[in-house]
Amino acid sequence: MSLLVVGSVAYDGIETPFGKTDRILGGSATYISLASSFFAENINLVGVVGKDFADEDIELLKSKNIDLEGLQIDSSGNTFFWKGKYHHDLNNRDTLDTQLNVFEHFDPIIPEGYKDAQYVALGNIEPSLQEKVLDQVNNPDLVVMDTMNFWIEGTPDALKQTLKGVDLLVINDSEARELANEPNLFTSADKIREMGPDSLIIKKGEHGALLFTGDEIFSAPAYPVIDIFDPTGAGDTFMGGLLGWISYTNDLSPVNMRRAVIMGSVMASFCVEKFGPERLKSLNEEEVFTRYKEFRDLSVIPEIK
Amino acid sequence: MSLLVVGSVAYDGIETPFGKTDRILGGSATYISLASSFFAENINLVGVVGKDFADEDIELLKSKNIDLEGLQIDSSGNTFFWKGKYHHDLNNRDTLDTQLNVFEHFDPIIPEGYKDAQYVALGNIEPSLQEKVLDQVNNPDLVVMDTMNFWIEGTPDALKQTLKGVDLLVINDSEARELANEPNLFTSADKIREMGPDSLIIKKGEHGALLFTGDEIFSAPAYPVIDIFDPTGAGDTFMGGLLGWISYTNDLSPVNMRRAVIMGSVMASFCVEKFGPERLKSLNEEEVFTRYKEFRDLSVIPEIK
Repeated sequence: MSLLVVGSVAYDGIETPFGKTDRILGGSATYISLASSFFAENINLVGVVGKDFADEDIELLKSKNIDLEGLQIDSSGNTFFWKGKYHHDLNNRDTLDTQLNVFEHFDPIIPEGYKDAQYVALGNIEPSLQEKVLDQVNNPDLVVMDTMNFWIEGTPDALKQTLKGVDLLVINDSEARELANEPNLFTSADKIREMGPDSLIIKKGEHGALLFTGDEIFSAPAYPVIDIFDPTGAGDTFMGGLLGWISYTNDLSPVNMRRAVIMGSVMASFCVEKFGPERLKSLNEEEVFTRYKEFRDLSVIPEIK
Repeated sequence: MSLLVVGSVAYDGIETPFGKTDRILGGSATYISLASSFFAENINLVGVVGKDFADEDIELLKSKNIDLEGLQIDSSGNTFFWKGKYHHDLNNRDTLDTQLNVFEHFDPIIPEGYKDAQYVALGNIEPSLQEKVLDQVNNPDLVVMDTMNFWIEGTPDALKQTLKGVDLLVINDSEARELANEPNLFTSADKIREMGPDSLIIKKGEHGALLFTGDEIFSAPAYPVIDIFDPTGAGDTFMGGLLGWISYTNDLSPVNMRRAVIMGSVMASFCVEKFGPERLKSLNEEEVFTRYKEFRDLSVIPEIK
């Protein structure tokens, strides 16, 4: 089982109502890889960083068994940098600075040894680059893709083209409504699945997530994280936990997809407890499986005798 | 087991994107009574109607074993009338006409035979009137109350006074945030439970509902009703299904409260399929229990072997 992860690798400056960090490891490929590494073994990362990328961050990724042959180091500039400040309610944020740097000309070249990846995670990057990844891989069992409003509005044709090659799309509720141009979430899901993805996950933040696969709908609860410290990377971490579990179990049945959605939710619920990916570094098995059980307890509907 | 229901009895004029009705039976006490009558036996309704109230509506309520000794008939005017038009997305509506009529001077007098009610449903009316009901009843096992933004903003002191005598508050998510003055829903729940109600249900429309009782949180899924025809009365119907199930089972354990939340959701999911309370009139057992099972299937999180 190998998992190919393509996306951004970045440094983030983050301010929340609870604290501030000037520079912390970030980016979609980083969060997806770190979260999936909790379960998965052969993770191959494709991304680009600049001359300022720290050795200790390379070492961190390597220590989690993330293969970095596909991580391009472009010495012509610095690593993608994003700086943002969250509002009081943590649901909204202002971008204070975006320096694309070497990410501006990112060309996702897939190393030969990665092309037989069984699972492919397309982090949130330009749809035409996601398409370029799909052109290079050999018949993966599952292609999972993230996107965002920026691409839904800015490059709708490229996005729809890319969606045709995707098995599972993972987006949030406002993105789903915008992509389908439809207010009802369930009708949106039907319309999106007609665009290509057999399966769909709609993330709803504090309201949990919905999985549409085959004829089934699964409604996953949200974990009542009362003290969200920093929401950065929660969505990517969800995708990482999901794909890590799928890679580890190598089981795409609807019942196991439900477990994968909960594992994604578990990892995301931990991620928001500390700055950036800090909390993901120190997670242990007992914490993860205990929280999985807490998710189960939250949603049990008793039988009627 | 007897269930006392206090609230409005009204006629509604409703326009949705799918149709229009000039005049249909409505009001919180009507929906609560009709929905609870599916399960409960001794339902006692307290409300007021005017000289225009139709005999056939009296007969309908009586046919569902709803006792009308407490229904005041005030011949000095007409029944409360509300007219509204729903927007395309059905989440918002404009009020086109409100005629309080005899409801303006409603004084909820509880008949002697109703005062030992085991369960009390306070539909959404002025908090001081809800308080007046509580002053007249003798130690009910469970007082369930609904309210709305209008009272949270307009009569906050009376509302907070009434809340002290309430066991279970049932409100929607925007009301919960406003009442607690807090963006986070889970923190809002903690704050509201400190105001009096031991238990709390937060209704989230297309995102389901949350039940807070004892140390437990229960996250109930929403039913994927793709074709909502008319949302009028769904919230009151939820409360009716909930209290009907509680009255029928006479069981306030957390596990049975979960069943009650789902029964409320089941009844509400049927209610929105037709105009006003039309769909509630024709429901049968098989439909209700089949839908209960569908709710269970939606939310099953498989164990990890």
